[in-house]
Amino acid sequence: MTTNDLDFRTTVFDKEYITLAGTREGIVRGGRHLFDRLPQAFEGVDQIAVIGWGPQGSAQAQNLRDSLGGRLKVVVGLRAGSSSFAAARAAGFSEDDGTLGEMFAVIAASDMVLLLISDAAQAELHEEIFGALRPDATLGLSHGFLLGYLTQQGSHFPTGLDVIAVCPKGMGASVRALYVQGAETNGAGINASFAVEQNVSGRAVERALGWSVALGAPYTFRTTLRSEYLSDLTGERAILLGGVHGIVESLYRRFEDQGMSATEAYRHSVDAVTGPISRTVSTDGLLGLYQRLDDADREVFARAYVAAYPVGLELTHEIYDEVDAGNEIRSVILAGKRLARFPMGRIDRAEMWRAGEIARESRDDKALPLDPFTAGVFCGVMMGQIDTFIEKGHPYSEIANESVIEATDSLNPYMHARGVAYMVDNCSTTARLGSRKWAPRFDYLLTQTAYPAVDHSTSELGADLVKAFEEHPIHEVLRICAQMRPPVDIFVQ
Amino acid sequence: MTTNDLDFRTTVFDKEYITLAGTREGIVRGGRHLFDRLPQAFEGVDQIAVIGWGPQGSAQAQNLRDSLGGRLKVVVGLRAGSSSFAAARAAGFSEDDGTLGEMFAVIAASDMVLLLISDAAQAELHEEIFGALRPDATLGLSHGFLLGYLTQQGSHFPTGLDVIAVCPKGMGASVRALYVQGAETNGAGINASFAVEQNVSGRAVERALGWSVALGAPYTFRTTLRSEYLSDLTGERAILLGGVHGIVESLYRRFEDQGMSATEAYRHSVDAVTGPISRTVSTDGLLGLYQRLDDADREVFARAYVAAYPVGLELTHEIYDEVDAGNEIRSVILAGKRLARFPMGRIDRAEMWRAGEIARESRDDKALPLDPFTAGVFCGVMMGQIDTFIEKGHPYSEIANESVIEATDSLNPYMHARGVAYMVDNCSTTARLGSRKWAPRFDYLLTQTAYPAVDHSTSELGADLVKAFEEHPIHEVLRICAQMRPPVDIFVQ
Repeated sequence: MTTNDLDFRTTVFDKEYITLAGTREGIVRGGRHLFDRLPQAFEGVDQIAVIGWGPQGSAQAQNLRDSLGGRLKVVVGLRAGSSSFAAARAAGFSEDDGTLGEMFAVIAASDMVLLLISDAAQAELHEEIFGALRPDATLGLSHGFLLGYLTQQGSHFPTGLDVIAVCPKGMGASVRALYVQGAETNGAGINASFAVEQNVSGRAVERALGWSVALGAPYTFRTTLRSEYLSDLTGERAILLGGVHGIVESLYRRFEDQGMSATEAYRHSVDAVTGPISRTVSTDGLLGLYQRLDDADREVFARAYVAAYPVGLELTHEIYDEVDAGNEIRSVILAGKRLARFPMGRIDRAEMWRAGEIARESRDDKALPLDPFTAGVFCGVMMGQIDTFIEKGHPYSEIANESVIEATDSLNPYMHARGVAYMVDNCSTTARLGSRKWAPRFDYLLTQTAYPAVDHSTSELGADLVKAFEEHPIHEVLRICAQMRPPVDIFVQ
Repeated sequence: MTTNDLDFRTTVFDKEYITLAGTREGIVRGGRHLFDRLPQAFEGVDQIAVIGWGPQGSAQAQNLRDSLGGRLKVVVGLRAGSSSFAAARAAGFSEDDGTLGEMFAVIAASDMVLLLISDAAQAELHEEIFGALRPDATLGLSHGFLLGYLTQQGSHFPTGLDVIAVCPKGMGASVRALYVQGAETNGAGINASFAVEQNVSGRAVERALGWSVALGAPYTFRTTLRSEYLSDLTGERAILLGGVHGIVESLYRRFEDQGMSATEAYRHSVDAVTGPISRTVSTDGLLGLYQRLDDADREVFARAYVAAYPVGLELTHEIYDEVDAGNEIRSVILAGKRLARFPMGRIDRAEMWRAGEIARESRDDKALPLDPFTAGVFCGVMMGQIDTFIEKGHPYSEIANESVIEATDSLNPYMHARGVAYMVDNCSTTARLGSRKWAPRFDYLLTQTAYPAVDHSTSELGADLVKAFEEHPIHEVLRICAQMRPPVDIFVQ
């Protein structure tokens, strides 16, 4: 993959160039002042279908409807008999005014079809869906999973129609919650990437940008559908979900072994990551976090970072290879077939998460520790993912969003407010399966190699890694991304 | 797969039928008194090549040479420049008498070629090797990995020659050590399965049986090459290596959390499994272990068993699916390409294994506890694997050997004598990678679901699982297998 091919032209929106670590990327900033341009972006489209009412479907259908303000019809399509009909009705969609209906009827009646059903459902139903699409429809995805699945099956999208993607870099709940806050603070939202897989109409770029602006994305950057699923599936298995889960499990145990009470250990591991560490990185970047530490804490951070970075690098490389080879997608499909017999278990019955519930009850957010060891481990694994994505040639916007911003601005705040079990159980099935698979790997490798290296090393190993951290190009990238960040933190109800 | 197709004819050896859980299997018992028949079994073969000097290669080359006593030539073939030349010379193979040489020259000069190089090397070199084989050679494997790899590549074995397998159900070190003891106790050895993938000569069955008898297998049963790699790769990822590793990690932590010292926790987890539990199952079977417990311990066992069995069943199903879909084989190949940059780390630097080293120093084998909770967890996961293999249609001999006998008679005794790190680092790369991948999954799922179920359940759940355990057909299978077991325990030097 090269980032050179990712430039694009738009006559509807105002493209800007940003320079990230020496590479130029075309981007479009969002905001409510652009909603007037949406009809022009969607020229030729009279009706947009949102298929599915999962976290993304429900958020996107409402954002699109509210942004378009009746200038285009937004219709929700659900499987016949789906239990989500009631929820869609409660959100204002209705069979009576033709904004809610059975999915195949809705697909056949729409010019643009946003397919936001689960990955497993996409794999199961895609042939029937392709058959129901109008011959000149625009097919929209929010994730490259289906491309990965089709590739693995030796199949492809129907020729003759546009295939585009807009992929918000956050959970569906954040996509809706921040959009709502955008009424007060123009520009609040979740960044998104867009991709054009097939452009028969010549209108694919404008439609994708219109979709992204309508969702409320503060800024939209371009990627490819393949690049998207490689980084997205890898990221959620690594630092975004699986990695952070494994990190906090290993740290909690370590702190308890060192004599902390269960509540203290929880504060210094889970609460520290999802609270002060994430908040600091969100506003000041990784370097800002590091610079905020005093000398003693900075040394603790550095020792932890140097030990954890190789774990992050090794495991993110392994995950990336597994995604690239199709193994992860095959695993998700296989797991889907087993779920009826072996439902996914909950993680929150284990002693650690029970202790966490008690700890959360008495939590004083302002008094939470920015534990420097925990910060070093978290940032080390995160940087391992960043360097993997750089090595694989992903655009910097994608790297920064899939490795840092989605964690600090979307997932970790939810985890902080609702607990890890909530987070792990409110992502997509694909993400939940991936997290269950990879979290234990991060835990074991940190416990087997990183912590012994910290505890038993005698020499000044890793000075080169600390220097590489201090001078890393990601800091400048995050600084520029932060300039485009809306001045509002995510609000978790 | 059906077991009906696995009957076979031999005129050289004495086939017997055993009935295991209502299904009839043809088997051949081994013993040194049969070595006189080997030339007849190998009719048409003047020279047998053993390619590779790993654990299996070194053990099999020596056993074959010693069993044949010069009646056929056994030649070791190694990669040019291999550091194993010295070890092969030390074991009595020599360039001077033509029993040691460069592998491709040896292959080209041999009638029967036993390919015992690593899985990664087989994947890398198989085309060159196929090209070097004589057109009427017999190709021998000790593992179905290459079939899995070829299938996944859309490739196949060269037509026109025999392809057979003899797969000892134990580590190479056990194959040699027990064979040596066979000089004192006729019949000592490691059971083996055999498979006939291609039989052009019509002599494939006799050659496979001859090979197995020459290795010292107490009894030899038939399987298919595909059935072999499905059960072998699954088994080593589950109870044989990955599963047992994850079990003892989770138990050690649990016992420490309950207030045991590190040494006590190690005794009740690792030492209990690899010592008294394995020894008892080896001689008396799973039911014998259960019956040996007093009423109070039996209740503890049952509670642990009932909670752990679903974990074993779920994860063994997942592993089986992953192996069946080719994911595990692809993962091994991908990992092989990463190993130069990311070498496999050692597991023995973590606190638990350091504590284990200290615990082993003061160990009194006779005083080790047969901890009933640990026994229940171990047997529960083991039975989950047994039931998975039964459901998938494997022959009972394969099920018993790949789920129980290989653990209790080969792997666990080594682990007991040398430590877990030794075991995990002395299996094949394929097994070591699989163990690193799956051990943490067993640990997490036991910790997240099984132990909370034990600690917080109030009702009499699981009486049906206990009854199913008590009446399980595997007990009768193990009883019959035990009758064919040589009256000698493995001796670990």
